[in-house]
Amino acid sequence: MAKSATRTFGILTSGGDCPGLNAAIRGVAKAAYGMYDMNIIGISDGFRGLITGEAHIMKPTDFSGILTLGGTILGTSREKPFKNIGQMADSKEGRTKPEAIEENYRKLGLDCLVVLGGNGTHKTANLLRQEGLNVIGLPKTIDNDIYGTDMSFGFHSAMQIAAEAIDRLHSTADSHNRLMIIEVMGHRAGWLALYAGIAGGGDIILIPEIPYSIDSIVRHLMKRERGGKQFSIVVVAEGALSTGEAKLIREERKKRQKKNRSPSKGYELQEEIEGAYGMETRVTVLGHQQRGGAPSPYDRVLATRFGTAAADLLFCGDYGKMVALEGNDITAKPLEDIAGKLKLVPPNHYLIQTARSVGTCFGDE
Amino acid sequence: MAKSATRTFGILTSGGDCPGLNAAIRGVAKAAYGMYDMNIIGISDGFRGLITGEAHIMKPTDFSGILTLGGTILGTSREKPFKNIGQMADSKEGRTKPEAIEENYRKLGLDCLVVLGGNGTHKTANLLRQEGLNVIGLPKTIDNDIYGTDMSFGFHSAMQIAAEAIDRLHSTADSHNRLMIIEVMGHRAGWLALYAGIAGGGDIILIPEIPYSIDSIVRHLMKRERGGKQFSIVVVAEGALSTGEAKLIREERKKRQKKNRSPSKGYELQEEIEGAYGMETRVTVLGHQQRGGAPSPYDRVLATRFGTAAADLLFCGDYGKMVALEGNDITAKPLEDIAGKLKLVPPNHYLIQTARSVGTCFGDE
Amino acid sequence: MAKSATRTFGILTSGGDCPGLNAAIRGVAKAAYGMYDMNIIGISDGFRGLITGEAHIMKPTDFSGILTLGGTILGTSREKPFKNIGQMADSKEGRTKPEAIEENYRKLGLDCLVVLGGNGTHKTANLLRQEGLNVIGLPKTIDNDIYGTDMSFGFHSAMQIAAEAIDRLHSTADSHNRLMIIEVMGHRAGWLALYAGIAGGGDIILIPEIPYSIDSIVRHLMKRERGGKQFSIVVVAEGALSTGEAKLIREERKKRQKKNRSPSKGYELQEEIEGAYGMETRVTVLGHQQRGGAPSPYDRVLATRFGTAAADLLFCGDYGKMVALEGNDITAKPLEDIAGKLKLVPPNHYLIQTARSVGTCFGDE
Amino acid sequence: MAKSATRTFGILTSGGDCPGLNAAIRGVAKAAYGMYDMNIIGISDGFRGLITGEAHIMKPTDFSGILTLGGTILGTSREKPFKNIGQMADSKEGRTKPEAIEENYRKLGLDCLVVLGGNGTHKTANLLRQEGLNVIGLPKTIDNDIYGTDMSFGFHSAMQIAAEAIDRLHSTADSHNRLMIIEVMGHRAGWLALYAGIAGGGDIILIPEIPYSIDSIVRHLMKRERGGKQFSIVVVAEGALSTGEAKLIREERKKRQKKNRSPSKGYELQEEIEGAYGMETRVTVLGHQQRGGAPSPYDRVLATRFGTAAADLLFCGDYGKMVALEGNDITAKPLEDIAGKLKLVPPNHYLIQTARSVGTCFGDE
Repeated sequence: MAKSATRTFGILTSGGDCPGLNAAIRGVAKAAYGMYDMNIIGISDGFRGLITGEAHIMKPTDFSGILTLGGTILGTSREKPFKNIGQMADSKEGRTKPEAIEENYRKLGLDCLVVLGGNGTHKTANLLRQEGLNVIGLPKTIDNDIYGTDMSFGFHSAMQIAAEAIDRLHSTADSHNRLMIIEVMGHRAGWLALYAGIAGGGDIILIPEIPYSIDSIVRHLMKRERGGKQFSIVVVAEGALSTGEAKLIREERKKRQKKNRSPSKGYELQEEIEGAYGMETRVTVLGHQQRGGAPSPYDRVLATRFGTAAADLLFCGDYGKMVALEGNDITAKPLEDIAGKLKLVPPNHYLIQTARSVGTCFGDE
Repeated sequence: MAKSATRTFGILTSGGDCPGLNAAIRGVAKAAYGMYDMNIIGISDGFRGLITGEAHIMKPTDFSGILTLGGTILGTSREKPFKNIGQMADSKEGRTKPEAIEENYRKLGLDCLVVLGGNGTHKTANLLRQEGLNVIGLPKTIDNDIYGTDMSFGFHSAMQIAAEAIDRLHSTADSHNRLMIIEVMGHRAGWLALYAGIAGGGDIILIPEIPYSIDSIVRHLMKRERGGKQFSIVVVAEGALSTGEAKLIREERKKRQKKNRSPSKGYELQEEIEGAYGMETRVTVLGHQQRGGAPSPYDRVLATRFGTAAADLLFCGDYGKMVALEGNDITAKPLEDIAGKLKLVPPNHYLIQTARSVGTCFGDE
Repeated sequence: MAKSATRTFGILTSGGDCPGLNAAIRGVAKAAYGMYDMNIIGISDGFRGLITGEAHIMKPTDFSGILTLGGTILGTSREKPFKNIGQMADSKEGRTKPEAIEENYRKLGLDCLVVLGGNGTHKTANLLRQEGLNVIGLPKTIDNDIYGTDMSFGFHSAMQIAAEAIDRLHSTADSHNRLMIIEVMGHRAGWLALYAGIAGGGDIILIPEIPYSIDSIVRHLMKRERGGKQFSIVVVAEGALSTGEAKLIREERKKRQKKNRSPSKGYELQEEIEGAYGMETRVTVLGHQQRGGAPSPYDRVLATRFGTAAADLLFCGDYGKMVALEGNDITAKPLEDIAGKLKLVPPNHYLIQTARSVGTCFGDE
Repeated sequence: MAKSATRTFGILTSGGDCPGLNAAIRGVAKAAYGMYDMNIIGISDGFRGLITGEAHIMKPTDFSGILTLGGTILGTSREKPFKNIGQMADSKEGRTKPEAIEENYRKLGLDCLVVLGGNGTHKTANLLRQEGLNVIGLPKTIDNDIYGTDMSFGFHSAMQIAAEAIDRLHSTADSHNRLMIIEVMGHRAGWLALYAGIAGGGDIILIPEIPYSIDSIVRHLMKRERGGKQFSIVVVAEGALSTGEAKLIREERKKRQKKNRSPSKGYELQEEIEGAYGMETRVTVLGHQQRGGAPSPYDRVLATRFGTAAADLLFCGDYGKMVALEGNDITAKPLEDIAGKLKLVPPNHYLIQTARSVGTCFGDE
């Protein structure tokens, strides 16, 4: 173990924050420090800190007692160092941002850079790998849309918060005859709406991957009413699209993004349904509640597993990979196989089938 | 106790549902049945059940095991039997709704009617009292705006849910520089925003009783930024008004209600602040989450106290009153003193002062 | 689907209750009724109801709205119909219990019996299968010790409760120098202590599968103290054994059960550690909290998946199996392969390794 | 305000930790710093830090963001500086501990010392006041036994945790016929068992102030069984006493404390009830869970109110008092009126009456 004792790695968190970042930092650091005696450099505010060189040596007191802490002790940013590259150089010294990163990587004496992030982060990680840097990635996101891993930490916590919110809406069910719409996160991928919708017993689940028609929704509401249910809960991902919208987008994705300045999908849907069906509806927009708070116990275990696995990769010098969950097992996937891809809900996914089996409507029948 | 054994009372829940209704029903019923040996008639769906005569005898198994249950086992409605009275008679038999209520009150052999509800319910209760019926009221509302009592059950549960939502937004605080807006319930009274705002450490609290100016909000945000805080949380009651709106409303309250078709105060405020300050903001609309779920332990104790106190009034034949909390004590207030009044937040309320002492801004400085 | 319309199955829950039973009942029933138009007979109080014939037809209102409900709407018992068989006949009519079960199975016109339970239940299920009955099993247990499935519903809920309890103990950490012992369930299998211990950041985890020595524990505490940590949390399964006890048990398992009348493992351990190390310790015994309350969202999804999968087996007439989770997939395992087996924690399980990587002590080094 | 600008106060937390300490520190500090421009000295580990002089100037970043944090950022100890005074002098310099405290009080230039603690702390505070120091106290305890205030912060959080634990036990109720015993904190005062017992719907509540007899408990269990309830929950304070024990203690309180080395009241009671009644019982010992975790929103508001009120007293130079809650109002009570007293549950307290009204047994009938 003498050789590894000299190894040094940098660690940063990048992109939107989510529960479990600190649990994962702790996992990497405890294992790398305690088992492999490595040096750990904490880099501030994502890739921005690597560009500016803002970094510090992490001691055991820094990564102890943070298992349940929300947010990230390292700070984060949405800095994308390869964006607009070529168009503009770094103002101060004429270097591009990737050049600044490489320089600081050398200056800090790093053997490897550990990045915790989502799809954008792993895209950057792969570009840095191509530039010759050693990189290891850990998948975090509340959307669960990272390609190559069955689960990312953060997702379970967000799902649990969303499910509990749906639970609360349910208890009004026996008293009032109303349609409750709850908007959850998910611009491109519907995992959160799907999973929380099943867990919360949502009657209608609308996700970006399955365009919905208001007619189909109204038919389902009428069927429920005939069956004596005068109350329904609609779980809608913020990126859900009607069949009309979906067609439009296929034609010109760009225009839509400019057009789409409605405050939220939930209210949009409220107008559509009230217009078509006349039922009184109420809207809840979960918002950033889904990103906040302590990670769920499930996420803490997953983040710890990812973290210790990353430390093993560091020890073995097995770079250029993202740790991943496949079934019950932790594996490592080449960054080049992951970068730029998105894991969407397949329309015949087993959870879609499960939901349909208990009578859930996806607005597509 | 021989005499009281023959006593019979009806019980109903009216208005929007809120946590603690079942705990209060259980409290009245357990005490009235177990201590005073009374007969209990459960009336369905608020005053509607008393108009149609939908009612049933409640046995111990009906009111056992419901302490923590959300919603109401009796059902509720927003039926206001005295509304439009004189204009139209009950279709079936030419009776008005109050006449139908009186008839059913006699038919069911009630000595008294126990109503659980908010301001509207107690207004109706007082009118029934004037018609000669014996009525006892219990104050429930998540708004805490019932006149004559320091606290209504339901409020604490809603406040706790709102505070926990604010907590979750806070954990994003160290990672991103953002303004988080969270809209809580409260059309006329700001108790919920005020209490949850203090409990959650909201930086800016906007309530209907204190009109706000965007200038004042922006000044506070700038002051925080100078102090190194690049993140703020705004807790806004759905009925909060800018000074301009408030003036308008004083002039013509009616017109505004038609005008006000913006989807939610939260999004309205987002536009105002982004326009004036340019900071990136995110909106969360708590919605009906605040009404749902199991009552908090505090509310269960309060509802149980109200319930057993109502049973004592029943036993004593002390009718025409609403049970109330004054300081630590349960008292009973004449319905005529309460009906038609609203308990708003006084601008110099001690909680306002507490909040200002820890630096909270109300948008009015 | 015409044929299946005539199919009828009975459903019962057996053994200790655990979160998710109602979610699973709902899953089977909604899918079997809604998709396959089957008849559903609810059997009361586990196998006891099948012996006495206490059963009723379940309608949609019976299995709707129960997704989040704790306990079981069917009731349960620890009745083991094959126990002491041969020694005594059923008192009333000279039948054995299995004979009574077979008779009622025919009388009720069942095509299959769906049982929700743990190891004991599946052992009975397999014996009934050998008697010629069609049986399908669903794995429930908070211990996660059912052979043949990666996960049973109920476990995640219990784990989460235990982890949250550990969290609360941690917040005392910075203020007092103390050893906190928390005893969680697990007589034979240590899954709950292991998983919750990792999720809660327990410093020492003691499970039945890994005998511990007090010396090893004391060494770990001393090492922590030298590292500046004057506070430790011990998560101990109720069935954990010291190396001495473990040896004893291997010799004569029976005697021990009589001997072992100490009130709880937690207090026993307290005496041992205080005796050997002198540190002030406090004990928490989680007890039946771990079995109670609403199922976690994870367990609701898992129970719903198991339930709908069981309905698919019913439709296909694929009897004699237990639904199971393998990785991400739902499969079905022959009851004969499962009956009488126990899934213990292998000493080199990946979670043991993860825990050791972050410095957790298992009392065996 | 010019004069007050020069004022300096020290602040410390003493005794067992409890939720809300940081919220109260934040309240004092934010108000004293932001409104009154005072200097704040944080003293480490209770009175121990004042004896050794371990203290530091607190800046806004120290007392910001700690509202929801469990434990205490200042550390705490059970140091009682006046204990054994006269018997031994401080080893190092021949001073007694109070002398060391006075010396450090002068050295640090304190105008006043703010102490957050329970009964022991306020006893010490009063002795320091008698020695000529300016002292202000804030009442914290999960036992709610501090004389002179209706409520202390910490109690509501502990009560809520206990009530939720009782909830979980209840969900096993419909499935098994069992007696569940849950032991909560409370050596001398039964507030926690009483309040949580009502909130959780406990069937039997045993508190130190009302000695119980097993006969009375058994009678109540038999009555419940006759009424069809085969399941009961007993909430027992750790200091509850049978009538026999209570008599013994009145005779010789000292001896008992030596005698009482049973691991916990809960297990003791289990043996008594199983012996007398034969019902199968299970025990849960809540333990330090009750002290841990984030303060409840109620406690955060109360602690903030106490904190800002203490700042007002500091500004006015109104020393020698403890802030207190009377009804809805914050008041200040002379330390000499409070020191050495204990607030027990009066046997005719309104909550006892409420509990009896819904059929709760206290073991004394």
